[in-house]
Amino acid sequence: MNYEELCAKIRRFNEERDWDRFHSLSNLAKSVSIEAGELLECFQWEDDPKDLHAVEEEMADVFTYLIDMADRMGIDLLEAASRKMDKNALKYPVDKARGRNTKYDRL
Amino acid sequence: MNYEELCAKIRRFNEERDWDRFHSLSNLAKSVSIEAGELLECFQWEDDPKDLHAVEEEMADVFTYLIDMADRMGIDLLEAASRKMDKNALKYPVDKARGRNTKYDRL
Amino acid sequence: MNYEELCAKIRRFNEERDWDRFHSLSNLAKSVSIEAGELLECFQWEDDPKDLHAVEEEMADVFTYLIDMADRMGIDLLEAASRKMDKNALKYPVDKARGRNTKYDRL
Amino acid sequence: MNYEELCAKIRRFNEERDWDRFHSLSNLAKSVSIEAGELLECFQWEDDPKDLHAVEEEMADVFTYLIDMADRMGIDLLEAASRKMDKNALKYPVDKARGRNTKYDRL
Repeated sequence: MNYEELCAKIRRFNEERDWDRFHSLSNLAKSVSIEAGELLECFQWEDDPKDLHAVEEEMADVFTYLIDMADRMGIDLLEAASRKMDKNALKYPVDKARGRNTKYDRL
Repeated sequence: MNYEELCAKIRRFNEERDWDRFHSLSNLAKSVSIEAGELLECFQWEDDPKDLHAVEEEMADVFTYLIDMADRMGIDLLEAASRKMDKNALKYPVDKARGRNTKYDRL
Repeated sequence: MNYEELCAKIRRFNEERDWDRFHSLSNLAKSVSIEAGELLECFQWEDDPKDLHAVEEEMADVFTYLIDMADRMGIDLLEAASRKMDKNALKYPVDKARGRNTKYDRL
Repeated sequence: MNYEELCAKIRRFNEERDWDRFHSLSNLAKSVSIEAGELLECFQWEDDPKDLHAVEEEMADVFTYLIDMADRMGIDLLEAASRKMDKNALKYPVDKARGRNTKYDRL
């Protein structure tokens, strides 16, 4: 399964259910946050949850809404992430950021 | 840029900065939630934000932490998302779910 | 400062700025999530942040949106929280829940 | 029920269940985010949810974790919120902010 195939699968899934009417960008942004909260719930009281399959499924849910959103915006998320990392590389130069968890505006 | 190339780019980025020590699964799950909140902020007071580039960049941040997390767990997110959709297809059969935003346990 | 006084202060703050038009329940729910993400950011890479004043301010932001929301719904949050705790006490009976972080449906 | 009484009720609830061991500030910050996500879920596909009682209960959950957290930090949340509003009043002066949803750094 590659990225384009997954996009197509998500698109078909929503079309079949006539869910496009609900999937505005705003509702999808909310959905990403809601699913991110469910992912975090796996780590609520412990740093190493036993049930990694549950973790994987929550990650899949965040991911699916994110791709759905990107697809509606006409964005390739892989390219967008790569561009953002190039920008982050300038904000966090290796010699300054190495081994530190400090935010860029305090480096 | 395909999925494997992006994984490798993220891995290299973190290794160069010696950030692996901070990127526990628990911290990455928090990071996904934090970035999802920043994405949601683009939609805080309006459903159609003007600055779609900012939206794209926040999506890229959520995505990057998610892939980082998946890579550390040895998971292929594309496959995980595809499997989760197959499961969702059973929870939301087309004939019951069509045109409705009802949660599966009330369908 | 008691709860009613804080409610009144928040109400006046928003009226003076004519912000009622933006503060729909839906936008306030988003705002609570966004600010909760900023609170979480204080704990992104460490369990014991140095800057507890920043933590306090983010908590204040979550709280303020929550009270604003409750006030618009005509709810007293203190009473609502107390009622919810009575309900939780039934879901988590002392003898079953003591010393365990298990969710109620698995107790 | 006033603020101090609710604080005391939450404290007793946790002590009876020996849950203090789980309620580190970091875990409570995660819990606030998780519950904020559940609150947002009430608004996932619609701006005006029918079930306002569910909304109220999710608000109560966010609120309870927030008060628990404040109590452990020795903070009075009502005072903290009031102080933060005074600070916000300077960031958003009435004449500049009136009727606008622009962030303070762009006003």
